[in-house]
Amino acid sequence: MVSFTATALEGIPLVQPGDDLAPLITASLTQMGLGLTDGDVLVVTSKIVSKAEGRSVRLKDVMPGDEARQYAQVTGKDPRLVELVLRESNTVSRVARGVLVTEHRLGFVSANAGIDQSNTADGDEGALLLPEDPDASAERLRADLQTRTSATIGVVLSDSHGRPFRMGNVGVALGVAGLSALLDLRGDTDLFGRRLQISMVGYADLIASAAALVTGEGREGRPVVLLRGLPPTTESGRASDLYRAAEQDLYR
Amino acid sequence: MVSFTATALEGIPLVQPGDDLAPLITASLTQMGLGLTDGDVLVVTSKIVSKAEGRSVRLKDVMPGDEARQYAQVTGKDPRLVELVLRESNTVSRVARGVLVTEHRLGFVSANAGIDQSNTADGDEGALLLPEDPDASAERLRADLQTRTSATIGVVLSDSHGRPFRMGNVGVALGVAGLSALLDLRGDTDLFGRRLQISMVGYADLIASAAALVTGEGREGRPVVLLRGLPPTTESGRASDLYRAAEQDLYR
Repeated sequence: MVSFTATALEGIPLVQPGDDLAPLITASLTQMGLGLTDGDVLVVTSKIVSKAEGRSVRLKDVMPGDEARQYAQVTGKDPRLVELVLRESNTVSRVARGVLVTEHRLGFVSANAGIDQSNTADGDEGALLLPEDPDASAERLRADLQTRTSATIGVVLSDSHGRPFRMGNVGVALGVAGLSALLDLRGDTDLFGRRLQISMVGYADLIASAAALVTGEGREGRPVVLLRGLPPTTESGRASDLYRAAEQDLYR
Repeated sequence: MVSFTATALEGIPLVQPGDDLAPLITASLTQMGLGLTDGDVLVVTSKIVSKAEGRSVRLKDVMPGDEARQYAQVTGKDPRLVELVLRESNTVSRVARGVLVTEHRLGFVSANAGIDQSNTADGDEGALLLPEDPDASAERLRADLQTRTSATIGVVLSDSHGRPFRMGNVGVALGVAGLSALLDLRGDTDLFGRRLQISMVGYADLIASAAALVTGEGREGRPVVLLRGLPPTTESGRASDLYRAAEQDLYR
């Protein structure tokens, strides 16, 4: 039977700077009677990884530059937040009232460079940057969990993004370890021997979206989701496999 | 426990024009010992709905007009296929070698108006249009299945789309019945009472992407996926809830 289950882990406490996520995750799994088995994929919101890695910033400690002040005027956003967005970005791709879309230094395009102001203890003064290197964070967490459980697993660090053309946020993979980020089906054929028209699948983004169905947005209470039963892929994917270079982007 | 399962139905035969999908689906469910229960969501590829509705066209029956011939030259595509794309579209939004992105008459933006040339028995001469009215198709299938099973369920007609900014296709909802397409969380607060920054969730697209993890792309062998365990939503969603009007599209 081709089937998988997605289960939100329970009892993950509010993550603090310096926390080690692997023992929090294995404790939850043990409490739930689940453990880890080969082929499991853990989807972890990038938010708790950021918190564990101490990526929170207080806006009062940020001095906005001239460029940030200018974009702040156009967007109506706090100039200190805009300063953080610019520091985290390669280029600004869209600016309007309430809107600041950039290409993040990691290579993807998103609003506000993924900087999150909800669920931080500092209120309006708090801002949480994305992990420094989400693929490396995913790989580290994978290694820690594999050492603790002896299972060969995959890890996806997830976030949720708005998108062109369609309303509503969906899940995206910002960090990938131990599985394919992008499935390349070029050369595969259909039932009648024709070459497939759909030849690339945003696999780790599908995984992040599946997990988002149980993560919820509001309460940060379910930041880790276990996917069990997915077919094995190669183990060498990276989130950047999913980033479309601007010059190859025929949809923009 | 917050958890759902996604299970591909087995034994769905190759769908033919005029086929009634509901008995094919219930026969598969019975054979698998599954049945349907309240809150189940069935994700059905729009492709088999198109086939059942007789939406296949032979290219040799299509006479391309002047506009189609022009776009065919730029894109390198078959002018008869381009003619079909134009007939199914409101506007052309992007044209390049190998690329024809349009706003479909249904309101979403996609490549080739969702016209599919794989897994049709007519080889290079076959083309499959999307269902005439996917929300109505979803609603009809939902009603048929509910009559047969007495369960209150949701139905999503799914397709897979390329997208700006990111590589790889992901699942999208083209037809929705019996559940929310878009979750509106505006007004919800986080753990610390702050208003959520992520306030709209592309819920039916998340469902389509979760199902895509087990559907596969190649063989049309698993065109129906049962999702069990999702929390209930309102029952009044429509796929068009997910289509972002161009003038409100701050990502384009």
